[in-house]
Amino acid sequence: MTDAIVQPRLMRGLRDYLPEPMQARQWIIDTIRRVYELYAYVPLGTPAMEYLDVLTGTAGESSDKELFVVQGPDEERLGLRFDQTVSLARVVAQYPDLPRPFRRYQVQPVWRCDNPYEKRGRFREFIQFDIDAVGVESALADLEMITAMCDTMSALHTGPYRVRVSSRRVLTLLLKYARIPEARAADVFRVLDKLDKLGHEKVRLELTAGYKDESGSPVPGLGLGGEQVDRIDTFLAACGTADRQRAGEGVQRRDAALARIAELFREVDGAEAELAALAGLSRQLAALGYGDDRVVFDFSIARGLAYYTGTVFETELCELPEFGSVCSGGRYDDLVARFLGEKVPAVGTSVGVDRMLVALLELGRAPLRKATAQVLVTTLDDALTDDYLAMTYELRRAGVRTEMYHGMFKRFGKQVQYGDRYEIPILVVCGSDEKARGVVQLKDMAIGRQLAAEKKLADKSQWRAARPGQFDVPRGELVAAVRKLLAEIGA
Amino acid sequence: MTDAIVQPRLMRGLRDYLPEPMQARQWIIDTIRRVYELYAYVPLGTPAMEYLDVLTGTAGESSDKELFVVQGPDEERLGLRFDQTVSLARVVAQYPDLPRPFRRYQVQPVWRCDNPYEKRGRFREFIQFDIDAVGVESALADLEMITAMCDTMSALHTGPYRVRVSSRRVLTLLLKYARIPEARAADVFRVLDKLDKLGHEKVRLELTAGYKDESGSPVPGLGLGGEQVDRIDTFLAACGTADRQRAGEGVQRRDAALARIAELFREVDGAEAELAALAGLSRQLAALGYGDDRVVFDFSIARGLAYYTGTVFETELCELPEFGSVCSGGRYDDLVARFLGEKVPAVGTSVGVDRMLVALLELGRAPLRKATAQVLVTTLDDALTDDYLAMTYELRRAGVRTEMYHGMFKRFGKQVQYGDRYEIPILVVCGSDEKARGVVQLKDMAIGRQLAAEKKLADKSQWRAARPGQFDVPRGELVAAVRKLLAEIGA
Repeated sequence: MTDAIVQPRLMRGLRDYLPEPMQARQWIIDTIRRVYELYAYVPLGTPAMEYLDVLTGTAGESSDKELFVVQGPDEERLGLRFDQTVSLARVVAQYPDLPRPFRRYQVQPVWRCDNPYEKRGRFREFIQFDIDAVGVESALADLEMITAMCDTMSALHTGPYRVRVSSRRVLTLLLKYARIPEARAADVFRVLDKLDKLGHEKVRLELTAGYKDESGSPVPGLGLGGEQVDRIDTFLAACGTADRQRAGEGVQRRDAALARIAELFREVDGAEAELAALAGLSRQLAALGYGDDRVVFDFSIARGLAYYTGTVFETELCELPEFGSVCSGGRYDDLVARFLGEKVPAVGTSVGVDRMLVALLELGRAPLRKATAQVLVTTLDDALTDDYLAMTYELRRAGVRTEMYHGMFKRFGKQVQYGDRYEIPILVVCGSDEKARGVVQLKDMAIGRQLAAEKKLADKSQWRAARPGQFDVPRGELVAAVRKLLAEIGA
Repeated sequence: MTDAIVQPRLMRGLRDYLPEPMQARQWIIDTIRRVYELYAYVPLGTPAMEYLDVLTGTAGESSDKELFVVQGPDEERLGLRFDQTVSLARVVAQYPDLPRPFRRYQVQPVWRCDNPYEKRGRFREFIQFDIDAVGVESALADLEMITAMCDTMSALHTGPYRVRVSSRRVLTLLLKYARIPEARAADVFRVLDKLDKLGHEKVRLELTAGYKDESGSPVPGLGLGGEQVDRIDTFLAACGTADRQRAGEGVQRRDAALARIAELFREVDGAEAELAALAGLSRQLAALGYGDDRVVFDFSIARGLAYYTGTVFETELCELPEFGSVCSGGRYDDLVARFLGEKVPAVGTSVGVDRMLVALLELGRAPLRKATAQVLVTTLDDALTDDYLAMTYELRRAGVRTEMYHGMFKRFGKQVQYGDRYEIPILVVCGSDEKARGVVQLKDMAIGRQLAAEKKLADKSQWRAARPGQFDVPRGELVAAVRKLLAEIGA
C-alpha cells in the first residue's frame, strides 16, 4: 500500500476506450483493413517518435505548433508524429530498395497538441488509417483512392456519404483567373480551407482587409483587391458552394460542375487540359459504378495541409453535415523530395478512425458489443471446480469464446447479474444435482432479457416457474448443444 | 521542392516495420487476439500519455528513469506509458462502474528510454499484448494466465517453450528461512532478478559486499551475512537453477520441485499452506493437459517490477535459451490501491510482440509474406485501361486481393519483375491480341519461380518456348479461373 492516493485522470483531449467502444473501434479498423487488403496495399509500421527536423516544416506552421515534443535520452529533440504521411515520406527516402510503386496502408495513433473538441471527435490522440501510393504519377492512383474511400464507407455502413473531389491544380488556375500571383497560393488556399468553419463572409474579409474575431483579436487579411475577390466569389458560386450548404444541396452532376468551371476558365491557360483529365476521371468512376450520388466535384475544397499539390478529397456523411470530413487526402508530389532531393509523385487518403467512431455512435450505426464471451461457465460449488475447468477448456478448444466466473462472490445471483451486464448470451450452470444426473443446464440469456423487457414475466415467482430459455443437456453433449444454441440465436 | 535535404533517420532503439516483418507482426497480434478472445477477455484502449504522477513510483526506480517525458500544452507534465498495467490500474480506479471481475486484453506500444539491444529484440518502442484479470482473488485466475500463455505459444508455433512459474510469496518464505528482515524484500528480489543476466557469482557478491563492474564502477552490495547468503544458495540449489542453465537442463517435474522446497522450508511458518496451494495449481494444470514439459516451477525467478505480490511467470523458448523471456507477468494486488485507496487483487501477463517477432525470425518460424496481393493486373496498352480497371474491380468485388499496376514504366518486363519482387502469385495479362480473341492470360508466377530456381529452363529462349504456368481463359471466366488457380496453388 502506498501512502498518498494518486488521482486517476487524463489530460483533456485524451480518452480511454472501455470495452464497448473499443470493440466498435476495433471493428472499424478490421473492416477498413479488409477493404485495403482487397486493394492489395501492404502494411507499414513506424515509431511514434520522429526527429523534430523530420516533422517540422512539412505540413505548415499550424502543424508545427501542434507537435508534442519529447526529450530523448541523449538530448535528442523528438516529436510525436502528427500524421503518418511524413513518416511514410521518410521511409521511402531511407529505404531506396523498396519496390515502387510502394502502396502501403498504415494504422497507428497520431498526436496533435491542439484544442480538442470531443463532441465532434477531435482528440489530442487519435488513430488514422491511411493508404498511400508512392511513385505513381498516373491519375489511376487518384481514382483508386476515391473508390477505396467509397468502398470503406460502404463497408462501415455509414449510411449515405459524399466524397468531394477537388484539385490544387484547379485552384492554381483560379489564381490565374483572379490575377493573383502564384507566390500567394499557400496563403489563399489556407484561407479558402476555412470556408466550412468560418463561412463565406469571414473568408472574404480574411482575403481582403482582415477582421476582428469574437474575442476582439485582429485576424490579418491577405490584402487582395476587390476584383480579385469578386473573381474568387464568381468561382465559388460556380462551384455551387458559396456558403457550402452541405445538407440542403441536392446531388450535383459531375459533368455539370466541370462545364461551369470550363465556361468560367475558358480564357485561362491550361484549363482545358486539366478539366479534360478530370472529365476522364469522372467517366472512369462512373464506369466502375461510382455515381454522382456519392462522388462529386467541389473545387472550393483546398485542404489545410501545406504539402498537397494536386487532387484533394474530403468525405462527408450526409446524415451529419455539420460533422466535417471523416476521410480525407490528396496528391503530394514534393514531400519525399525533402528527404531525397528527388521528386517522387504520391497520393494518399486517411480515415480518422476515432472521429468515424464518434460519428457512427451519433448515427446509431456503430455495432456495439459489451462482451467477447459467448458462454459464461458459472461456479456454484467449490467441490466441482475441476468440472467447471474441464467444461471451460472443452468449449474454448472447440472455438467457443468462454469465460469461467472467477469473481469473489459465490452467490449465483451475482453471476447471473454479471452475465447480464456483459450481455453474455449463454450461461452454463452445474450444481451437485446436475452433476449427479450427468447433465449441465444451459441458460439462453437473450430470451430472459427479452421477456423481461416485454414484461411478460412480471415477478420473480413467475420467472422461477417458467424458467424461460433454460434446459438440461447431457454433460457429454455440452459442446454440441452450445454450438447449436449459438447458431440458433446468431451469437 | 524544399531547399535543404533533411536526413531520413530514426533514433537508436526505434525501428521501422517494412511490409514483410509488419505482416508477420500483424499475424502475431491477430493470432494472440484470437487466443485471448477464446478466453473471453474484452479489449481496452488507453492513450499513450499519462500524467507523470500516475506513472512514477509504481514499478520501481529503474522504470521511473526509463520514462520519456512529454510537455503538455498547458505545462502539464506527462510521460509515455512504459507498460499497460499502470494505465489499467488507473482505469479501474477511474471508472468504478466497470463490472468486476474486469478481464481485459490490451495491445498497444509502450516506450522505454533505456539502452536498446535490438538483436535480442529490446527496443525503445515496442508493442505489448497484455491480459489482466482485476478483482479476482481466486488462484483460478493465475491458472488461466499460465494456460493462456501456453495456448498463445502453441498458436504462434514457437516450437518448444517453457513457462516458469514462481511466487513472491515463496520468496518471502525464503526471507524467513534465511532470516532476512522482510523490509529488505524489494532489494533482495531486485538482485535475484539479475541471476539470468549476471550469473550466480555476481549476484552473490551484490547480495553481500558488492563488486566493481567491468568499467570499474562500484556496484554496492546489500551487506547480507554469510549464513544468510548460504541459505539463499541452498535455496537456489534446491530450485535446481544455481546458474540456471536453461538450455542444458532436462525437464523438472513440478511435484519434485515442490517437494525439495517443502523439505527445505519444513520449519518455516506458512510454507505448508503456500506449497499446498501451488500443488493444487499444478494438479489442475495437469488435468487440463499442461504437463511438466511446458510448465515448470522455478522459484529463483523474482521478476524486476516492484509491483508484483504473488505468482510471477516467465516464458522461454527452448531453442533460444539465451534470448530471455518473451511472455511474463504475475499477481499485483496493490497497484490499484495507489489510485483507489482500496486493495484490488489482480493478475496479468504480457507478450512482448516485437521481441517475439525477433525470436520467431531468428528461429525461422515467422510466417513471411511480401505482398497482400493475390493477383497483379498488368497494363500493356493504354487503350485497354478501362478493361484493366474492370478486371481489377471485378476481382476485388469477388474477394480476390488485386492490384492493378500503376507504375511509371509501361514495359512489361518491369511489371513481371515487380510481381516477382513482391512474390504476387498470379499475373493477369491482356494485350490487344487477347482482347481481340476475348480472352485474358493468367501467369502462375510460383511455377515460373520454381522452374527458375531449379534451373530447368536455362535460358530466355527456352523460357519463351515453354511458357510454363501460362494459359488463356475466356474474359467472362476471369474470376472463376483465378479462384480455381488460387485454390490449386494454395495462395
